[in-house]
Parts: sequence; structure tokens; C-alpha cells
Amino acid sequence: MKIIILKENLKKGLEIIEKIIGRNLTLPILNNILISTEENLLKLSGTDLEIGINYWALCKVEKQGGITVPAKFLYSFISSLPDEKIQLEVKNKALYIECKNYKTQIKGDSVEDFPIIPKIETENFIEINSSPFSQGISQVVDFTTLNQTKPEFSGIYFNFQKNKVNLASTDSFRLAEKILYFEKEIQKNNSFILPQKTAHTVVNIFSQKNTKMKVYFSSNQVLFEEPFLEISKPRIQIISRLIEGQYPNYQEIIPKEYKTEIIVSRDEFLNQIKTASLFSGNTNEVKIKVKEKEQEMEIFSQNTELGENQSILKSKIKGKDMIISFNWKYLLDGLAHLSSSEVVIKLSSEEGPAILKPKGDENYLYVVMPIKGI
Amino acid sequence: MKIIILKENLKKGLEIIEKIIGRNLTLPILNNILISTEENLLKLSGTDLEIGINYWALCKVEKQGGITVPAKFLYSFISSLPDEKIQLEVKNKALYIECKNYKTQIKGDSVEDFPIIPKIETENFIEINSSPFSQGISQVVDFTTLNQTKPEFSGIYFNFQKNKVNLASTDSFRLAEKILYFEKEIQKNNSFILPQKTAHTVVNIFSQKNTKMKVYFSSNQVLFEEPFLEISKPRIQIISRLIEGQYPNYQEIIPKEYKTEIIVSRDEFLNQIKTASLFSGNTNEVKIKVKEKEQEMEIFSQNTELGENQSILKSKIKGKDMIISFNWKYLLDGLAHLSSSEVVIKLSSEEGPAILKPKGDENYLYVVMPIKGI
Repeated sequence: MKIIILKENLKKGLEIIEKIIGRNLTLPILNNILISTEENLLKLSGTDLEIGINYWALCKVEKQGGITVPAKFLYSFISSLPDEKIQLEVKNKALYIECKNYKTQIKGDSVEDFPIIPKIETENFIEINSSPFSQGISQVVDFTTLNQTKPEFSGIYFNFQKNKVNLASTDSFRLAEKILYFEKEIQKNNSFILPQKTAHTVVNIFSQKNTKMKVYFSSNQVLFEEPFLEISKPRIQIISRLIEGQYPNYQEIIPKEYKTEIIVSRDEFLNQIKTASLFSGNTNEVKIKVKEKEQEMEIFSQNTELGENQSILKSKIKGKDMIISFNWKYLLDGLAHLSSSEVVIKLSSEEGPAILKPKGDENYLYVVMPIKGI
Repeated sequence: MKIIILKENLKKGLEIIEKIIGRNLTLPILNNILISTEENLLKLSGTDLEIGINYWALCKVEKQGGITVPAKFLYSFISSLPDEKIQLEVKNKALYIECKNYKTQIKGDSVEDFPIIPKIETENFIEINSSPFSQGISQVVDFTTLNQTKPEFSGIYFNFQKNKVNLASTDSFRLAEKILYFEKEIQKNNSFILPQKTAHTVVNIFSQKNTKMKVYFSSNQVLFEEPFLEISKPRIQIISRLIEGQYPNYQEIIPKEYKTEIIVSRDEFLNQIKTASLFSGNTNEVKIKVKEKEQEMEIFSQNTELGENQSILKSKIKGKDMIISFNWKYLLDGLAHLSSSEVVIKLSSEEGPAILKPKGDENYLYVVMPIKGI
């Protein structure tokens, strides 16, 4: 193999792939990246056996071939080089790198030792805009949990139906749901559970991009693919296994009726919860008194060692007065994913689930269970 | 005690003091801050028994008194409050804090339980400008070492002589020296060894300030004092014990003669050393070949597992060709403290100390020992 490529083009691909690569001691070849030529393109591949990523870059190919070298090391090294053309050449099981003022060789392994990244066997795909899709995923991606008896809870649920997709995740203490609409109706409804690491990878790679991407799905695999703008070939592919099992009917958990509705400034609520959290001790409990007459919430927390804190938050309140306790971490996590200046809180009862949502947006909600009174 | 103070004024003092306070398990009172009134001022004090800090702030005193409360906790809490007036009141061994929308109490201990921060018994002081003085300290503060047989090496050496002060530190592998000049000659020469933590504290507090400060010294203590601008009283005091012992005659280590002088771009040298460091392995060794005829340095490093790297750096070179090895960490540490765009490197021999200094500045130098050849 011998090619010439711009440093920035090479670095972009390495950056995407090195993120999914860990430090695997039992299968050290997984710490490597596969570098090879494919016609007039450079192809970079990496896998952790759950996710595989392929990345193609434009370059000048002088000789076909390939090699595998340590991924994180190559990324650090290429990042440290000046912004110039780089020549990559494979000789004697090593990658020779030449760039203005630099001559380097990195020891590698042959292409045959690298695990094969599977291809997906389906023509069944949906085309979507990368940026809103991955930003939608980012609003639910943090609420999964590792649970041996319920492996479904370790993933994000994608439910494609007609002109929309519902994204959901839960760890049984809280639940987030995002709905995204498409311009065209899709031809075939479909649902799957995506591992959290893949979901994070999709968010990292695509949330800043304003391009079209294709989502292919088979019964046990999914492929996210971005094409080149210049040529009709894939530029990035993320292939992932899916989590087996039936996602629970989470809609049942979302309360349909509520006794009290509160509208409040997101930032002020967030600040007062943060301050209260300092006093809450090991239980993480903050108590909220909702007072319709005064049109205010009183936020209270205490700790036998440190002391106590009470604050007043002016709010628009409709409904029954209530005293309800929450784990402050769950409240902050929810508020962090609401981007509106005002948020709507709906309380079903002192012991039942509460809903947080951005004011004026019906496409996102966060359900949180209160701490039950003693 | 009952006072009213602006949040920002209180926060500034807490911020300075909480930094020196650790988590002391054997003497938990040291985790506290002492809050008291002194005439019409609020006084905050903290100590780790090596350093003590006093901080005075303007406020409205309604009732004299004091209390001690956990320092880091109080700082976190006050920081979380809105920018408003705050009322502090001591009642029943607790600090009651009231601020717009907030009512809080923090449990405390009585003033008598707090260790006394010693006063310095001397009238002997030097007046200096805070900012150049503390920036000068910052250029030598990182090169101390903890050495049981040579406790002097754990501190920074201050040597006040006539119209200047020489600041120096060394860990025996490298040495840094900074010279600062005064407008007026000082009346009495003096020298002392300051603990590194105190030096860091002085840098943190004073390097952004453009004020006059006084340095008082006795045989075993030093006091750094900044006055109020508005009233003739101290605003900040840092009192520290000094390290006993005789500082070694470090001037002997600085080579007076050299065989080769190199002038090179600081940033390019720094980048090439960083890249070379990736290949250097456990020894941290990078090898530099100095070639006068080619007017270049060749920087080389290798690692049996990963591979090797060679880079070429154009330089102005006068003197003997040489091959010399350094620990890349020591080179980077030195370069990080040189702020000029070009640096001067002086080599005495393959095995003798090298000097790094900013081009055009005779008041700072960094001496580093090479790794000796096998």
C-alpha cells in the first residue's frame, strides 16, 4: 500500500474510530485500526465486536494494500503532525509515514489478523436528516441501565411508525421519550433496541452534521450510513448488533391524568435544586411544597450534620397543593435535557410519577418517580 | 454576630481560603473557616497549620461576634446563591444565612475551638508590585521535590540582595532561576526558603493583581500582605512558616561555558518533542543530533514495540556537533515556562547540564541534565 492524503482528512476518520476502541487485553488486535485501499479511496475500519465503523476518505492511491496498527497511538501521532500532505506506505509489516520534516515507522500486523466487520443483509432502509435524528437520540441516550434480568433496559428503543419515530429509554426510576416526525411516510414500520454505546457513537458522529443518512435494519443488526456528497458511495458506516427482547410497553408508565400543573423558569428551578442538593445528604432527597394560593414552590432539604436550606420559587400553579420528594440527581438530569426557558411539571400524586417537559413542545417528555414518604 | 454583605465580596474571600484547606481527618476543625467581625469589617481566616490566610471584607456590621463552619461547604453554598445582598447571623451554634428567596442554616463550632493563626513579630518588610513578583514565582514554583534528606529542595529559594531578588528551585535533575529587579534598593539583604504550597498560594492570589504588597520576614516566618485601597488596613494576609536549612549554592550547577549554542522556534521545538515523546517508551528518552553544517537538529526516538520517529528542525547553530539525550518531560516543562517565540539552548557537553532560556531575556534560565549515554 502507498497513498498520499491530507492530514485533516486522515485525522477525521481516525478520530471517529479511535473513540469506540478500548484497551482490550484478551484480544489485542481489537485495539488496532485496519487501514486499506479500496479503488481510489482509503478505508479505515475499527470494531469492538458490538459496533463496527467503516470510514472512507479521498486520497491519491499509488499502490493498493493494507495493514493494521494500534488505533489510539496512530491517532495521537497523526494529530501531532503539521497540517500537510502525508504519505502512508506499508513495508515489512510496518506503516511508514512521511510528512514535512517527519519520517516515522509504526509496527503493525497483517490485514488477515483483523476481525471481519459484518455486512448487513437487507435492502430495507429509511432516509433521514442526520442532525435532528442524532440530537433526538441525545435527549434519551443517558437514561439506560445495565440490568441482567432486563437486558432491554440497557438500550434505546426505536419505534418507526408511519411518519414518525418514537425514541425511549428508562432505568425504571425515570423515563425519557422523544418523537421525531418525517416529511414522507415510511413504507414499513419497524422497531428495535439499540445498545447505548452505539447510540452515543451515532450522536458523536452525526449531531453536528447537516446531511442525509440512511438507516438499514435487519432482525439483529442496524446500519447507519452517510454517503459522500461527491460520489455515490458510503463515506461512514456504523454497523451494530441489536439487543434481543421485547421492549416493555413504556406508554403505560406515562400518567395520563394529573392533579397539579406547574410552569416555572428552567434556570431558576435548576439553580434552586442545585443549592438544595448541597444539604440533601446520602438520600439525595429534596422536598417540594407546591402552594397554589401563594403561586410558589418551597424547596427544602436538610442534613443532620450540616444544617438545612429552604428556598422559594415563584411559579404558575394550577391544581392541588402537594408535598412531594425527589432524588435531586434525577431532577437535574431531566432539566439538563429540556432546552426551553420555561418548563412544565405535571404531578399525578405524592407517590406517583411526575412529568417534566419543555413548555410549548409536545415531542419530548421526562417521567420521574418521586421518593416515597415514610 | 450579624452582618450584611454582597455575595461577590464574601465569595472572593471564601474562594481564596478554601483552596488551602484540605480534608483533615485527625483535626477536623482545620476543615473549617473562621468567620468573625473586626470593627466594621468581616474577617475570614483559614489555616492548614503551615499557611494561614486572613481576609477582610467591607460589610455592614449590626452585631459583633463569630463562628466557624466547614469551609468548602460554605464556599459551594455561597457560590450557588444569586448575586444579591446576604445576611449572616450567628445563633445557637449555627450560621443563619438569608438572601433573596433563600433561608439557610449551617451548623458550626465556636470561635474558641479554632487554632490561632500566628502574628509575625517583625517590622522588617519590603514593598513590591504583586503581579511581576507572583508571575516570577510561577516560573520556578514547579521544580521542587520532596526529599527527606534535603528538605531545602521542597521549597523555593528567595534571595533578596540590594535592588533585586533571585528566585530558584531545583529537584536535582533540573533547576530554574528568575531574577526580579526593584526600583529602590532594599535596606537589608535577606534570604529564605518558602514551602511550595505557600508559593502556589501567593501565585494564585496575586498574579492577576496590579497592586503593591508588603513582604515581612522574621527568622522562621514570612507574611505577604495586601492593603485595602480605601482604608489603611490589611485586606489579605498570607502567613507561612519557612523551611529551615541552608539552600545549596545552586549557582555552581549553572555552566559558565558551553560548546554549542542553538536558537530555535519555541513552538516548533515543543511540537517535535511532543511527537517524539509518543515513541519514547518508559525511559522518556529523546535523542537530539545537533548539526552545525546543516543548521538543523534531528530529533529521534524509538520503542521496540511501537516503532520509531525522526524529525528535522531548522535551527541557528553555532559550535560543535553533538548527540545528546534528554528526558522529554523535562524539556517540555522547561519550554512551558519560556514565553518568547524563540528560545536559546546552550549545551556544555553530551553529559553536562544544558541551559534553556528565552531569547532576549537574561532574567530567566532553566538548566536540565541530559540522560547519560550507555
